[in-house]
Amino acid sequence: MFDYEYPLNVSDLLYRARYLFPNKELVTRYPEGIHRYTYGDFYKRVCKLAHALDKLGVEKGERVGSFAWNTFRHLELYFALPCTERVLHTVNIRIPDEHIAHVVSVAEDKYLFVDEDLIPIIERVQDRLDTLKGYIVMSHSGKVPDTTLKPVYSYEELIEGEEEEYPFPEFIDEKSTALMCFTSATTGFPKGVEYTHRGIVLHSLVSSLPDAFNMHERRVMMAVVPMFHVLSWGYPFACTMVGAKQVFPGSQPTPKDLVELIEREKVNYAAGVPTIWLAVLSEIETGKYDVSSLKEVLSGGSAPPRALMESYDKYGITLTHAYGMTEAYPLVLVSRLKSYLEDLPDNDRYRFRAKQGLLLPCLRCRVVGESGQEVAHNGEEFGELLLRGPWIVKGYYRDKERTQETFGDGWYHTGDVVSIDEEGYIQVADRTKDLIKSGGEWVSSVQLENAIMAHPAVKEAAVIAARHPRWDERPLACVVLKEGGKEEGKKEGIRELLSKRFPKWWLPDEILFVDEIPKTSVGKFDKKVLRKDFGDYYIGG
Amino acid sequence: MFDYEYPLNVSDLLYRARYLFPNKELVTRYPEGIHRYTYGDFYKRVCKLAHALDKLGVEKGERVGSFAWNTFRHLELYFALPCTERVLHTVNIRIPDEHIAHVVSVAEDKYLFVDEDLIPIIERVQDRLDTLKGYIVMSHSGKVPDTTLKPVYSYEELIEGEEEEYPFPEFIDEKSTALMCFTSATTGFPKGVEYTHRGIVLHSLVSSLPDAFNMHERRVMMAVVPMFHVLSWGYPFACTMVGAKQVFPGSQPTPKDLVELIEREKVNYAAGVPTIWLAVLSEIETGKYDVSSLKEVLSGGSAPPRALMESYDKYGITLTHAYGMTEAYPLVLVSRLKSYLEDLPDNDRYRFRAKQGLLLPCLRCRVVGESGQEVAHNGEEFGELLLRGPWIVKGYYRDKERTQETFGDGWYHTGDVVSIDEEGYIQVADRTKDLIKSGGEWVSSVQLENAIMAHPAVKEAAVIAARHPRWDERPLACVVLKEGGKEEGKKEGIRELLSKRFPKWWLPDEILFVDEIPKTSVGKFDKKVLRKDFGDYYIGG
Repeated sequence: MFDYEYPLNVSDLLYRARYLFPNKELVTRYPEGIHRYTYGDFYKRVCKLAHALDKLGVEKGERVGSFAWNTFRHLELYFALPCTERVLHTVNIRIPDEHIAHVVSVAEDKYLFVDEDLIPIIERVQDRLDTLKGYIVMSHSGKVPDTTLKPVYSYEELIEGEEEEYPFPEFIDEKSTALMCFTSATTGFPKGVEYTHRGIVLHSLVSSLPDAFNMHERRVMMAVVPMFHVLSWGYPFACTMVGAKQVFPGSQPTPKDLVELIEREKVNYAAGVPTIWLAVLSEIETGKYDVSSLKEVLSGGSAPPRALMESYDKYGITLTHAYGMTEAYPLVLVSRLKSYLEDLPDNDRYRFRAKQGLLLPCLRCRVVGESGQEVAHNGEEFGELLLRGPWIVKGYYRDKERTQETFGDGWYHTGDVVSIDEEGYIQVADRTKDLIKSGGEWVSSVQLENAIMAHPAVKEAAVIAARHPRWDERPLACVVLKEGGKEEGKKEGIRELLSKRFPKWWLPDEILFVDEIPKTSVGKFDKKVLRKDFGDYYIGG
Repeated sequence: MFDYEYPLNVSDLLYRARYLFPNKELVTRYPEGIHRYTYGDFYKRVCKLAHALDKLGVEKGERVGSFAWNTFRHLELYFALPCTERVLHTVNIRIPDEHIAHVVSVAEDKYLFVDEDLIPIIERVQDRLDTLKGYIVMSHSGKVPDTTLKPVYSYEELIEGEEEEYPFPEFIDEKSTALMCFTSATTGFPKGVEYTHRGIVLHSLVSSLPDAFNMHERRVMMAVVPMFHVLSWGYPFACTMVGAKQVFPGSQPTPKDLVELIEREKVNYAAGVPTIWLAVLSEIETGKYDVSSLKEVLSGGSAPPRALMESYDKYGITLTHAYGMTEAYPLVLVSRLKSYLEDLPDNDRYRFRAKQGLLLPCLRCRVVGESGQEVAHNGEEFGELLLRGPWIVKGYYRDKERTQETFGDGWYHTGDVVSIDEEGYIQVADRTKDLIKSGGEWVSSVQLENAIMAHPAVKEAAVIAARHPRWDERPLACVVLKEGGKEEGKKEGIRELLSKRFPKWWLPDEILFVDEIPKTSVGKFDKKVLRKDFGDYYIGG
């Protein structure tokens, strides 16, 4: 017998794409036009990039940042760094300048790979990026535009002339870090998490299961979820492993760009947040595009309104809802109907489909109520969701305090308040911080929001806890009407809708019409801002 | 941070079935009638069995044998032993008595669980089973029949009254052994392999991928491949993980029994060796059964003749071919068409589908020719298939010599001679031991066999290397005609068929008509016996 345990390595995924799918395509949208190449070409450029990283002197275990859109070059970084035992740190391009400076400094990034059109952001903060030895600009022309960044290199010039084969390490410790990213926190700086080789391979396998993302070679996949955000939900790895054709939307894609890509590349599967699918739906509804190739849309980040699922169903496109978070690579739950629920009436089927779903294999969960006991599986009791498993991270990067707070007892405390029904479907009621406590009773802001968004005149709705002199907190609804919608009679209509579904004391005391709901950098409702603006509404603030 | 690495444990699969699929069914065929219960019931009985094992005094890490058909009780053993840190040793019920005595003794089994109707076999060898402290009879009536085995217990009496919950260990070392089995060897006693918790979980995940077995909750699965043979190809674990309905064929199932189960239980997916599917096809062709639920049949063990795939296609049933071995839990290759091969002419599609298929994620392979170099991917050069990966075993149990021979350089030497084509599909030409070396050139017996079996009058065919005074070895074909078939003109017909596809020097010098091809204990052609009988045919033996 020998002394090694064969490890799970990101390079396994690269190896498979190269050997089995060298002719499958990778497509990126650029302002200059579509870029198209194969996994065979991709592998050669990953090798060239690996040689270039050697020449730049990046050591084993060192972090290198990316500040980039979803493109084939970003995918090359996703593989070249981990497969040579370095770490790719994907920096969120939408966070405030001081957060960019903070995360690059905490990660001690040695180089930063920057998309051409994002240079101005980095120029603003460059003085504070003192761990960096240089910038590599990913310009589609291959030329570096005028910039104050220095030293600055061109990605294409850097890899030009390098060899198209690379002696990748045969075995990498599977517990070593392959990628890392930071997630925004309610207060304070973003929190960093590390993704291991083991975790990425396991997540690729589990997320590709038929009852999860169902990833296979016949997929033509367009991940709209950014590659700077939780590994683009792991799609770059899962797709490469199964040899799926990948379509990268590139810089600043509009809904129109996305629909054009679906039509041109015959995309049959796409993934992103519900707001994207709302916007894409509007484009589809113009009737100008042939989107008949599209069969499934994976929606995550927040719960999809039932109306959205129904609209997609009409086009023969299944909108599947999934749930996860930065701390879990991200996938935890996927909401697919069990075989024997398929025959339920429409209402019940949509009710299950709109829940966050069923727990993936290998994960364990506990739903712990206020008493510290696990809640009953009846869909009615609420508790905080705790998670544990081989791809749940074990803490925040160099952050003992918040690690202790969130992971201290060996379970990851998600901060999400959920119920779990008889069938095991988990439904998120709220973030612990978003729950409304009225007269000693909990009210779920998310359930109210979803109900309000089912009103035909409503585009978006957010419900917050507003301070109240008598009940401590009371729900307050902020509603955006669809374009051209009039306010007259809408408040009454919404109230009527809610009163059919919820007890009287759940109904928001006030419904405010606003122009838009503020969003976080990853497109979720930013309730912090709403609470700041309207939190004192009932006490005359 | 804490000091544990969350392990991959067989109990993860049990946990998921219990929490998410307590109402899904498990069905077993018994002579007395169908037994039916749910994963909820199953979990309780696994707990009761775990308590019973404690009372029997089975220690952590100790082996316990099973000698049993595919039944729900066998599934209970599959989980109760590993989930309590013991090891289940599945003993092949079809091996010679001296091999049974050998494997039980090498594994040092402490108890043996025996199906009622298999007691006579164990009675014959009981004197040589000196590591055993007792026998547990799995009788459907719950009563132990008269037997000379002692001490003897009844499975049902043993677990009766035990508690329906069990404090399973929270974390089991993922590298510890969960199950073990022995595989027959060309010479000498069977070779033992150990299956770890890690390997079983990884194999469950990978084999369930859409491009592998494609296992999901909607499957109604009938594994005909025995649970005493390579973990029944891992289906008991994969099915439990995804919550599939499982149908166990029980003792001595006939083709008629299998078709009746398909009809009654609405089986939509089944797995077994080609000879089973040949026999089942005959039943289907009687037109007496409604098998419209059946969508896919997984065939492994040996290559399916093209005619068999075509026949199933006519019924809307896809026969998918897979390849593996005891040393790989077993799955290594699955032959599904890539998307862009779907449009090929029928001939080419069947040619790809009949190959052994594409390598699964996380495995690595080398195809090494006689020169020690990897062969080109052109489908024409041949070499031995070497494998490595997280669920390839690392040696044979307490067998340094054969471990060194087969695993000595860190790669598992499969002994299969294969080619690999431009698309990455691997095709097994032969066992290294079955290749025919004629005048210094290799001839593939398997390719000749498959071609002969495409003749409409032929039921089965095996080609062996027979010693030859001039060419060293020459192919000799042993052919079984279909029932009622006459020999007249058949030799010429077969010769004509072969001469169209192969060079002249590949054609067998002689075609012998025989009553049957001898089979091994797992249903493969037993060429050892044929070589013994006919190996000297050309030199007058």
